[in-house]
Amino acid sequence: MLDELYPARRLADAAAAAARSGLDALLLTPGPDLRYVIGYDANALERLTCLAVPAASDPFLVVPRLELPAAQASPAGRLSLEMIAWEETDDPYALVATRLGRPATLGLADRMWALMVLRFAAALPGARQELASKALSPLRSLAEGHSRADFAIVASGPNGASPHHMASDRVLRAGDVIVVDIGGTMPSGYCSDCTRTYVIGEPPDDFAAYYQVLKEAQDAACAAVRPGASAESVDAAAREPITAAGYGQFFLHRTGHGIGLETHEDPYIVAGNAEPLQPGHTFSVEPGIYPGRDGARIEDIVVCTETGCERLNNVTRELVGVRI
Amino acid sequence: MLDELYPARRLADAAAAAARSGLDALLLTPGPDLRYVIGYDANALERLTCLAVPAASDPFLVVPRLELPAAQASPAGRLSLEMIAWEETDDPYALVATRLGRPATLGLADRMWALMVLRFAAALPGARQELASKALSPLRSLAEGHSRADFAIVASGPNGASPHHMASDRVLRAGDVIVVDIGGTMPSGYCSDCTRTYVIGEPPDDFAAYYQVLKEAQDAACAAVRPGASAESVDAAAREPITAAGYGQFFLHRTGHGIGLETHEDPYIVAGNAEPLQPGHTFSVEPGIYPGRDGARIEDIVVCTETGCERLNNVTRELVGVRI
Repeated sequence: MLDELYPARRLADAAAAAARSGLDALLLTPGPDLRYVIGYDANALERLTCLAVPAASDPFLVVPRLELPAAQASPAGRLSLEMIAWEETDDPYALVATRLGRPATLGLADRMWALMVLRFAAALPGARQELASKALSPLRSLAEGHSRADFAIVASGPNGASPHHMASDRVLRAGDVIVVDIGGTMPSGYCSDCTRTYVIGEPPDDFAAYYQVLKEAQDAACAAVRPGASAESVDAAAREPITAAGYGQFFLHRTGHGIGLETHEDPYIVAGNAEPLQPGHTFSVEPGIYPGRDGARIEDIVVCTETGCERLNNVTRELVGVRI
Repeated sequence: MLDELYPARRLADAAAAAARSGLDALLLTPGPDLRYVIGYDANALERLTCLAVPAASDPFLVVPRLELPAAQASPAGRLSLEMIAWEETDDPYALVATRLGRPATLGLADRMWALMVLRFAAALPGARQELASKALSPLRSLAEGHSRADFAIVASGPNGASPHHMASDRVLRAGDVIVVDIGGTMPSGYCSDCTRTYVIGEPPDDFAAYYQVLKEAQDAACAAVRPGASAESVDAAAREPITAAGYGQFFLHRTGHGIGLETHEDPYIVAGNAEPLQPGHTFSVEPGIYPGRDGARIEDIVVCTETGCERLNNVTRELVGVRI
């Protein structure tokens, strides 16, 4: 199964993508890019672990001596990939620089720490630093099927107005509206995300009206998803009915975010992003209305297909009343 | 209690430290530096959250609109700190750049993502990028006191040779040696770390001999800790008895790492680090011997005091036999 999840061809694909993007080498430190390319879910440490993927020569993994057994035991250990262990008193940045020669452009993992970015800038002063996502985002924009719960946002009553509210000890009471936003990571490494809104007993007076508007907006945005449509057109489709009903000022955030090996990644569904959607693009559609209290949000993950949109979350989007 | 943990003076102290370090401003994204200075344990997201601490003008926090309630609810909300919320279609990097004017040098949070490092480089092309730790490490080198378990390394038998082994489903058996390395975070945000080695029943034939050497080495290294002694002299003190007994090649890693708001931070106890220890420096002393299998490690966190060394972990360092 791991061989299917981390196929050996991804290393060659990454090198080819670097070449196409005008990058002489990718430098991937622990994080989703490294996991995607070689399946190594490395610890993010101050000691440098770095996969170098030159566009035109063999890749190599630089790894602290004491992390070598973990690297070898990972799916990366089954690839024909040279692993170079460095000792505590070595300079691993100089080691990478010497092996790379004189690259003109480097693609750094988007989440590489500044600590490492600046060390690479010093070790390879002639190289222009760009982001590896320039090459890897197109490869990672594909659809796949929780080994880990990553977050659970539960916001009730007055806290429902804070879209990223962290759980508090507030006691639920009759009439409370509750926004529940849960995401996790599947055994494949791919992330999920889903939001539904619940009410304890009967909702507040005006709530049912704007919940209905929200549901129509979420449907309209999903209906706008098709190959060639821009990301911002999907945002506009969600925003239009909410604005028309007078709630525009309460829709505080973008309509959605790409999702894959990261919970938030390209493409972002936001005004100003004219990127055309392509089959395989996978992202959230999650409009919300937060009028000070009793906020509501409906979120599905959708895939842009050859002909339109497939929703991956299918639990009811109707307002669900619960008893406590 | 939070007011004591995140005193308002830290913002002023950080600005003064920036000035002393020749940095015109610190830029702190979510992570331990941001927590230290204003007590805001922010989500690390692709949307920019950044505390700017100019050396010579007022600090400000740039925060996505939908994170503003969380920032205000954190200890940072009780400081006289301007919070600037940005909307989904704003450019927060340009916003920071405009407010800062024309800084010549910036100190970036050591763990700032490359994504943000490169955006700040583009928005402030005249500024030289350095690391915020240049200014903040001296402030953070102090001793304090688990609200969260951060890791637990359990390595038995053949896996004991891998210092950072992740738990497997290997079944323990008689004669197994088990290295247990556990760390967490206290309610104050400060981290702990401790390693002890156990044996099931009777240890392998040669084990008792090198465990005794290891214990002497760990004692010797603790005895070498005092103000003015170099970090590398503590490493040498641990290494000397292990090398003398013929196990030098099996001591694969540095002797220790600083610990505080991060599990691994300055000062590193490693050959090549001539930094003199100062009262308040807090770090691990954790020599290990890993002869292919049946590895052993003993780790304490110690504080450099005015006169020598205080160990913070006091559970027995003798080899403990257990039954299963």
